[in-house]
Amino acid sequence: MTDSGPDRCNSMTYDDQPWDQEYDVVVIGSGFAGLAAAIEAAQTGARTVVLEKMRIPGGNSAISGGLIAVAGSPLQHHKGIEDSPELMFNDMLKAGMGLNHPELARLVAEQSGDVLRWTIEKLGVEYQDSLNHLGGHSVPRTYITATSTGSGIIQPLLAECHKMAIPVQMKSQLTRLITDQRGHIQGVEIRDNYLFPNSDSGNVQRLRAHRGVVLATGGFSRDILLRTSQDPRLGENIDSTNHVGATGEGLSSALQVGAIPVHLSWIQLGPWASLDEKGWGVGSMFTLLAGFPYGIMVDSSSGKRFVNELSDRKLRTDAMLMKNITPVAIVDSEGVKNASTLDKCLKRGVVKKFNSLEELAAFYTIPLPQLHQTLERYNLSLSHGRDIEFGKPLVKDLKPIAKPPFYAIRLLPKVHHCMGGIQINSHAQVLSIHDHQPIPGLFAAGEVTGGIHGASRLGSNAIVDCLVFGRIAGKNAGAARSDAAMKPC
Amino acid sequence: MTDSGPDRCNSMTYDDQPWDQEYDVVVIGSGFAGLAAAIEAAQTGARTVVLEKMRIPGGNSAISGGLIAVAGSPLQHHKGIEDSPELMFNDMLKAGMGLNHPELARLVAEQSGDVLRWTIEKLGVEYQDSLNHLGGHSVPRTYITATSTGSGIIQPLLAECHKMAIPVQMKSQLTRLITDQRGHIQGVEIRDNYLFPNSDSGNVQRLRAHRGVVLATGGFSRDILLRTSQDPRLGENIDSTNHVGATGEGLSSALQVGAIPVHLSWIQLGPWASLDEKGWGVGSMFTLLAGFPYGIMVDSSSGKRFVNELSDRKLRTDAMLMKNITPVAIVDSEGVKNASTLDKCLKRGVVKKFNSLEELAAFYTIPLPQLHQTLERYNLSLSHGRDIEFGKPLVKDLKPIAKPPFYAIRLLPKVHHCMGGIQINSHAQVLSIHDHQPIPGLFAAGEVTGGIHGASRLGSNAIVDCLVFGRIAGKNAGAARSDAAMKPC
Repeated sequence: MTDSGPDRCNSMTYDDQPWDQEYDVVVIGSGFAGLAAAIEAAQTGARTVVLEKMRIPGGNSAISGGLIAVAGSPLQHHKGIEDSPELMFNDMLKAGMGLNHPELARLVAEQSGDVLRWTIEKLGVEYQDSLNHLGGHSVPRTYITATSTGSGIIQPLLAECHKMAIPVQMKSQLTRLITDQRGHIQGVEIRDNYLFPNSDSGNVQRLRAHRGVVLATGGFSRDILLRTSQDPRLGENIDSTNHVGATGEGLSSALQVGAIPVHLSWIQLGPWASLDEKGWGVGSMFTLLAGFPYGIMVDSSSGKRFVNELSDRKLRTDAMLMKNITPVAIVDSEGVKNASTLDKCLKRGVVKKFNSLEELAAFYTIPLPQLHQTLERYNLSLSHGRDIEFGKPLVKDLKPIAKPPFYAIRLLPKVHHCMGGIQINSHAQVLSIHDHQPIPGLFAAGEVTGGIHGASRLGSNAIVDCLVFGRIAGKNAGAARSDAAMKPC
Repeated sequence: MTDSGPDRCNSMTYDDQPWDQEYDVVVIGSGFAGLAAAIEAAQTGARTVVLEKMRIPGGNSAISGGLIAVAGSPLQHHKGIEDSPELMFNDMLKAGMGLNHPELARLVAEQSGDVLRWTIEKLGVEYQDSLNHLGGHSVPRTYITATSTGSGIIQPLLAECHKMAIPVQMKSQLTRLITDQRGHIQGVEIRDNYLFPNSDSGNVQRLRAHRGVVLATGGFSRDILLRTSQDPRLGENIDSTNHVGATGEGLSSALQVGAIPVHLSWIQLGPWASLDEKGWGVGSMFTLLAGFPYGIMVDSSSGKRFVNELSDRKLRTDAMLMKNITPVAIVDSEGVKNASTLDKCLKRGVVKKFNSLEELAAFYTIPLPQLHQTLERYNLSLSHGRDIEFGKPLVKDLKPIAKPPFYAIRLLPKVHHCMGGIQINSHAQVLSIHDHQPIPGLFAAGEVTGGIHGASRLGSNAIVDCLVFGRIAGKNAGAARSDAAMKPC
């Protein structure tokens, strides 16, 4: 437990503005990465504060599906699934098309077990007793929180911050990183009482960070101008699964102090979101947990499958976008048992229930004979133990899709994750474009960073990335000693 | 003709440093884009200077192959080749995988005819009387300078600068863009008498740019740290075709004043460079003009073709890298007539001459029966008027590869072009990451910009891009009136 209250003193910023508050570590963002960083920083004895621009904490993390990939986990051991950090690392590189920064990707895989244990033992996070097999992973290795949402981890993180007396300050918007003459980070300029998205709201405040600033500000999936700079196809007609605050100001602040932009044009669309609701919604988890692993996805105009439903997201969304089709995922009454959000999906009309394939085909105007043939071929595949047509890795004890009622969801790709961001090293230090050395006093973790996932992030690799690098950033920021920190205030 | 001599006066930079020299327009870089910009800026009456960090002018432009794509040109008309800016635009988008900023790509295609005329009528550039068909272009549309090098355009550009009394100042390294409090560009900080690559050499000078700064600093193919940030596979074991000064400082200076990085991770390797010499060398032009359009490329271990020799560069280099082969391009005594650098290639051992296929196959340890079969199949294809195996677009009057002696070159991909850079609009104004509006006083053109070519630049589309946007940048910088420019010095 540390005393995280601010000190007030009379020192000045480099450009002769007074500091309003002083901390050792200032963390920007209250998602997985930010909160994990704050806890680790405070653990070193650093006076730590978390700043969040929105009215509620948690950002995208809170609304995520709570899926976390772990290589060599107790559940895998229990279920006899062989896995290793090396295998997970190779899966990441394959999806990343070799663009991943290997030392960073390897760290995520290697520390995935530790970080799972930390969430359970330190935070008391509860997970379901089953593993999920997500696209692009060689084996089932994905835990899911008891609540099937990211808030199942965010709430325990917030409780821990509270316990450690780390203030988590809402409506505090980063406007600028403050450097000294040498380019070392001194602190941050923010607007407090900020009302998103009104850039004139709130009051300018300057916060000294004696040891370091941790950027954990997330991606820019909701910044339409920036995302169309990187990929002009992702204009405002394309929806996003992200919360409205995913607007990338942390990234631009970092670039302005010389951070290195990495892979910004690799923006991931999610293949599992529903056409019949906005954003991430309730349908995404239905497709992720039931539709894709236990069902099939067909093109409604042909009744045929067109891609491995568990391949990496880029392959799937490219197939969905390029072929310009309306995909429908179909699962039967057995497979649907794996869906965690079925009731909500049915209530909102996102998933429809059909007593027969005939009824289903008629509703979506899928040619019935072709749909029958597709299912027959797929079911036959299962009896041979492998998906002959598209090589989908089959979950254990997979049953044929045959038992009515059937459930279906119409899909369309939505902007989901920014693989790109600023470059860090394995100590979560932000590197400078001028000499590729750390910018003193600047750390980053989570979606604001780039390089870890290369061209494509695998599903359930975000939470583990955020927690691993959030913890590293917090530890190192807490341990950092700037020149200025030596001097008494 | 304008008086481009500097004025000296007593005004100060925003951070209270005196200006050493004053101009209206300061152009950084003396390649195609920079020199074209300087000429157009001076044409508006602006006092203009060109700064070049190296000891000699021209950068990569001077050592390039002097190939320029033009849609709907006099030579095409004369030869009965149907083409249009629309077709060229579509070729660019196809290679660019849809990532191109369409308004910029379209401008290049639409103004290609104008810019060709400008080089001939204004500059007196001389071109050969034949058109070339480069990879990814639907039709032959590529002019080549009389000297088969970019200096065939650089020298006339320099002569024009001289005629217009525009100083082109060597050994002048940009160290920083100087802004005022609002972020508007005021001028540049440089080191003059700089000796590349010694960053401590020379003396700091501050140059006022009353109307604007044009960045035409080229790409970062030779900056191994930055290129491995973007693509970790491109480490120091991979050679580059670029001159040693292609080190990207202009890009980092621009990012630090809020320019938007675009597509930095799309770095192009050239598929035509020789394994038997460093850099661009003399072999690249041999392959470009003879080996690929008039010959075939085979994998030396199998004797088989493995890719369309005229597909876009990404497809070709991916095929070469992924299959991990040693490709050899082969042409006969007919096809070799199109090579402009044959003598030099033979002299340096980059191209070898063989009296028979047997001799050639023995030298490269290519299985002879397979090589015979490959050539037979390819020659048979020609008699049907199309490349059945890989769909290579065939140049007119293509003859079978059959007439000894044969010529061959061993190839390997080398880092060639950075598609990514800073974002500009169609007025060549650099946009700010904060509001996506122009940064007042900052213009850019050429390889330092990103977005025009998307994921992959087609061969011979760089010179036309540089000249089109260089001219636009110069005109607009010359016409710009900053607040400060209104005030007398």
